[in-house]
Amino acid sequence: MRMLSVIGIGAGDPDQVTVQAIKAMRRVDVFFVIGKGADKRELVEVRAAILAEHVDRPYRIVEIADPPRDRAPADYQGVVEDWHERRSALLEEAFSQVDGVGGILVWGDPALYDSTLRMIERVLARGAVRFDYEVIPGVTSVQALAARHRMVLHRIGEPVHITTGRRLREDGLTGSAVVMLDGDCSFTQVPGDDIHIWWGAYLGMLDETLIEGPLREVEQRIVTSRDRLRAEKGWIMDIYLLRRG
Amino acid sequence: MRMLSVIGIGAGDPDQVTVQAIKAMRRVDVFFVIGKGADKRELVEVRAAILAEHVDRPYRIVEIADPPRDRAPADYQGVVEDWHERRSALLEEAFSQVDGVGGILVWGDPALYDSTLRMIERVLARGAVRFDYEVIPGVTSVQALAARHRMVLHRIGEPVHITTGRRLREDGLTGSAVVMLDGDCSFTQVPGDDIHIWWGAYLGMLDETLIEGPLREVEQRIVTSRDRLRAEKGWIMDIYLLRRG
Repeated sequence: MRMLSVIGIGAGDPDQVTVQAIKAMRRVDVFFVIGKGADKRELVEVRAAILAEHVDRPYRIVEIADPPRDRAPADYQGVVEDWHERRSALLEEAFSQVDGVGGILVWGDPALYDSTLRMIERVLARGAVRFDYEVIPGVTSVQALAARHRMVLHRIGEPVHITTGRRLREDGLTGSAVVMLDGDCSFTQVPGDDIHIWWGAYLGMLDETLIEGPLREVEQRIVTSRDRLRAEKGWIMDIYLLRRG
Repeated sequence: MRMLSVIGIGAGDPDQVTVQAIKAMRRVDVFFVIGKGADKRELVEVRAAILAEHVDRPYRIVEIADPPRDRAPADYQGVVEDWHERRSALLEEAFSQVDGVGGILVWGDPALYDSTLRMIERVLARGAVRFDYEVIPGVTSVQALAARHRMVLHRIGEPVHITTGRRLREDGLTGSAVVMLDGDCSFTQVPGDDIHIWWGAYLGMLDETLIEGPLREVEQRIVTSRDRLRAEKGWIMDIYLLRRG
């Protein structure tokens, strides 16, 4: 493999792909897809639809099974570290069999809560395969959330804070925070009567669901909607912005 | 005006525009361009080139002069507040003369350090004109910076902090921070020998310049490059990521 293109393809809406991403896809000979299991078949299909719509030259798709991972470990960083190492070994094996340009499509942007770039650096550090790589940025679910709620992520002159459910529970909330990767509805554990929430699930997709309002008034509705949607579809991707005051 | 489309068009590379943004542009009858003066003529030209490349139906461009603004005021929030009010009055006047769909192209994403959405809410609150509006997200310079340096914005499991030069000086640096809107090279005022910087100017444009390294080793080179580039072109747009440890 002489080149690897890591391509951000937006948060779920197939139209959120950039012209730059389309041009990069058209140079790729082999796309690597890291499988998430049958539950997320819909996400694999959206990627296949994006390729079918924008790429008219022949390409191969190589699926790589994702190794299993403990989702609620005591030693979070250690478990993630081990999981990355096992994924890297699988990628190394797949990369070594490609002649030409490889591609990996990433939901959102490769720079935000995605492990692809760390895996690539890890594969290169192992030293068994060599290649150059490029990164194409994409629209994230953070931006999709803000756009659908037609809002700015921060108050005038204030910073933007993007965090995880785990960190929200540990660090608490000061000002505003965008929260990703929260399977535990951590917003219910943030104390205070002066907090507003803007929540969204399946942003840009057919099942997109938006709820916003004072946190204490709408939190139970979000928890209930989230449980129902996840039961119906088998998976959920959601994100929210909290703001105090 | 029956509809207004606020369209993020990426950080400078004309190919960073999304398919969603192109489709939105094709529905617009009148584009409002808020003028930045002759210094930023190049930015106006990039926007015009994006429209010329992707829109093949007739449209009008209405330029709105940007009211002057004190860039280093003592009362920051008060001055911004007043500036927004004056801009809103100009927008209201422009909107009231349009029949059909209006459009505003925004560099990066309307949700991040951009005042367009606040101005629109202000125009609507004044009550003199009525319209519906939609927001199309775009790739930000934060993502363009990360992509060109091929890096992730945070360490594993850690939050992302995006702030301004002003706030960096006031709040200091803990962990990582992406810094925007810093005309004063505030990174030179952050103490410590364990900080790394990834800097970029004119991201995605012909004059793109990237510098990265230990902050204390490269900070003077960044200051010098920044001064030279700004003198040559008459304006500069830059951004950087700092990480401690």
